[in-house]
Amino acid sequence: MRIGVLGGGQLGRMLALAAIPLGHEVTFLEPSPEAAVAGLGRHLAAPFDDAAALADLAARADVVTYEFENVPVNAARALAARVPVHPTPEALAVAQDRLVEKRFLRELGIATAPFIGVEDRAELARAADQLGLPIVVKTRRSGYDGKGQVVVRRWDDLEAAWKAVAPGPCIAEALVPFARELSIVAVRGRDGAVACWPLAENVHRGGILYRSRAPAPRCEVALQHAAERHARAVMERLDYVGVLAIELFELDGALLANEMAPRVHNSAHWTIEGAETSQFENHVRAITGAPLGDPAALGAAAMLNLIGTLPPADTILAVPGAHLHLYGKRPRPGRKVGHVTLRAPDASMLEPRLARLEALLAS
Amino acid sequence: MRIGVLGGGQLGRMLALAAIPLGHEVTFLEPSPEAAVAGLGRHLAAPFDDAAALADLAARADVVTYEFENVPVNAARALAARVPVHPTPEALAVAQDRLVEKRFLRELGIATAPFIGVEDRAELARAADQLGLPIVVKTRRSGYDGKGQVVVRRWDDLEAAWKAVAPGPCIAEALVPFARELSIVAVRGRDGAVACWPLAENVHRGGILYRSRAPAPRCEVALQHAAERHARAVMERLDYVGVLAIELFELDGALLANEMAPRVHNSAHWTIEGAETSQFENHVRAITGAPLGDPAALGAAAMLNLIGTLPPADTILAVPGAHLHLYGKRPRPGRKVGHVTLRAPDASMLEPRLARLEALLAS
Repeated sequence: MRIGVLGGGQLGRMLALAAIPLGHEVTFLEPSPEAAVAGLGRHLAAPFDDAAALADLAARADVVTYEFENVPVNAARALAARVPVHPTPEALAVAQDRLVEKRFLRELGIATAPFIGVEDRAELARAADQLGLPIVVKTRRSGYDGKGQVVVRRWDDLEAAWKAVAPGPCIAEALVPFARELSIVAVRGRDGAVACWPLAENVHRGGILYRSRAPAPRCEVALQHAAERHARAVMERLDYVGVLAIELFELDGALLANEMAPRVHNSAHWTIEGAETSQFENHVRAITGAPLGDPAALGAAAMLNLIGTLPPADTILAVPGAHLHLYGKRPRPGRKVGHVTLRAPDASMLEPRLARLEALLAS
Repeated sequence: MRIGVLGGGQLGRMLALAAIPLGHEVTFLEPSPEAAVAGLGRHLAAPFDDAAALADLAARADVVTYEFENVPVNAARALAARVPVHPTPEALAVAQDRLVEKRFLRELGIATAPFIGVEDRAELARAADQLGLPIVVKTRRSGYDGKGQVVVRRWDDLEAAWKAVAPGPCIAEALVPFARELSIVAVRGRDGAVACWPLAENVHRGGILYRSRAPAPRCEVALQHAAERHARAVMERLDYVGVLAIELFELDGALLANEMAPRVHNSAHWTIEGAETSQFENHVRAITGAPLGDPAALGAAAMLNLIGTLPPADTILAVPGAHLHLYGKRPRPGRKVGHVTLRAPDASMLEPRLARLEALLAS
């Protein structure tokens, strides 16, 4: 089948690496001429809203998907008039606006931290008063990797916070004292079948995902089931096809949804080696109408992002069970240039390897 | 690193899919314009002995390897004068001549079936007399997938056999009543480190590999160790770098070497999903001077070749633990167009899945 992809970063690269063995051809629409997908399919270098490029992509694809959730919803809708687009552009529309997203989750009965929509400085003050400090103020649109959000701990900081996110519409959320962040990544096929990977435990540094461990340590079955119910509810409501991720806070043994990503997700990169079927392969299976693969974990895995710099590959590859994934991107501060998956037969064997790898990346 | 590859078939395709995540770029020299590696790197479409193309490949590569053992040894030697070539062209020279190969194995103390070099019809008759029927007569060069070999069971068949393989030099071998065919696939790094995958049990149909199971069922540790000693002896003698395969006959609990392949091998395709590190990744690691990865099996696996026709992908993907690998080649009789790996936590869980998949491919 011919697959069109909006976006051409590392997620597109890993989608292509999963699609090629399944016999598919991939065409990317990606504005940057230096895409991470170079050499892995056809690359249309044009803006996402370029009508001619969208028509070209539609003509070259039997199905279109995206690897980046900030592509214009109108571009996805224009494509959907000509060719099946999965996941539905409606999922993009929900995920691109943090206020719409939170309301959508609440309507489905999924708990979130308390939140209030904020249009101006005065509304921010009222929201802070209602929610009580600390709060986190986020732009409704275009934030990622910790950008577009500010934590407000003291009343004196409110002015600076507003300046940091103004003038666009925002959302103020109570900053909950969560125990840890988890994520559920799931996939839904064209036939409505759903498969969920085990919850991953995620640690961020400077707003960027640093480490995921999966299956998440010390995780009761009830928590996994609750997360799966959430993923299923979101996907069924949207008639969703493909991989979906929901970031969750664990708080007193319960889950609060933080945000969703209508695409393959960094916190499930461990599935390439750590699961029977990777998120990339299952996304491709789903959007092409093939049966889903088994999401079961193969032992224990951890994923570490390589951010900003590339450590020597040989020292990484010398760690038992280490698998290196480079994205073909030039290193620069704060940029994800690759990741390492560590796999081991069980968590007790994983820990010393993870400690060794973390020490190595810190050096 | 920039990797040059002689050959552009499915082995090259799978090498590229392993090399790209490790940050390498691949250039293929492959005469056929319709190569299985299309879209996975640069493709120089020229004969293997084209001096300008070889110079071009050398200029574009930091290291050169091959995915096809019938490339001219002189081409590999010409490249080796300009750029490191792994495995050594000497390994090609040995593997391309069945008589040289058998003598080489014997010199290393590795048992083979009794054999005699044959130059003409009269020598063939003498060899048949000495070895006793049945024998198998093979051309010394250019045979693969059962081509270039004839079994002689009766004296009356000798004339027809000679006509089938004449006029080139041949080798006559006693046809041993082996219990099964096994293969050992191993890899040696630039630093001399060696890693061996578990023995695979192989079944051929019409001279073409049909199925591999790994780890080979009912296989004692002593047999694995014997096979590893053989692989190690061959690799050390040749100062070999990269993946090597040796096909073996099991006979009365002992091993007879049949032939070797100085490259990644069909009987180890199961390692992509079935081992901690695949043969493709470890070949790339070896030739680029990186540390080798763990070859341990992850549960039990089987590989089935898709020969001649492509069954519907969806029926294959519906089998639990099935992983599909298509080669981007047009189906035609006798042509390997893809393979399926089945993985399961253990052999008892693998068998029913394998039976289901085999029934499906037979239908």
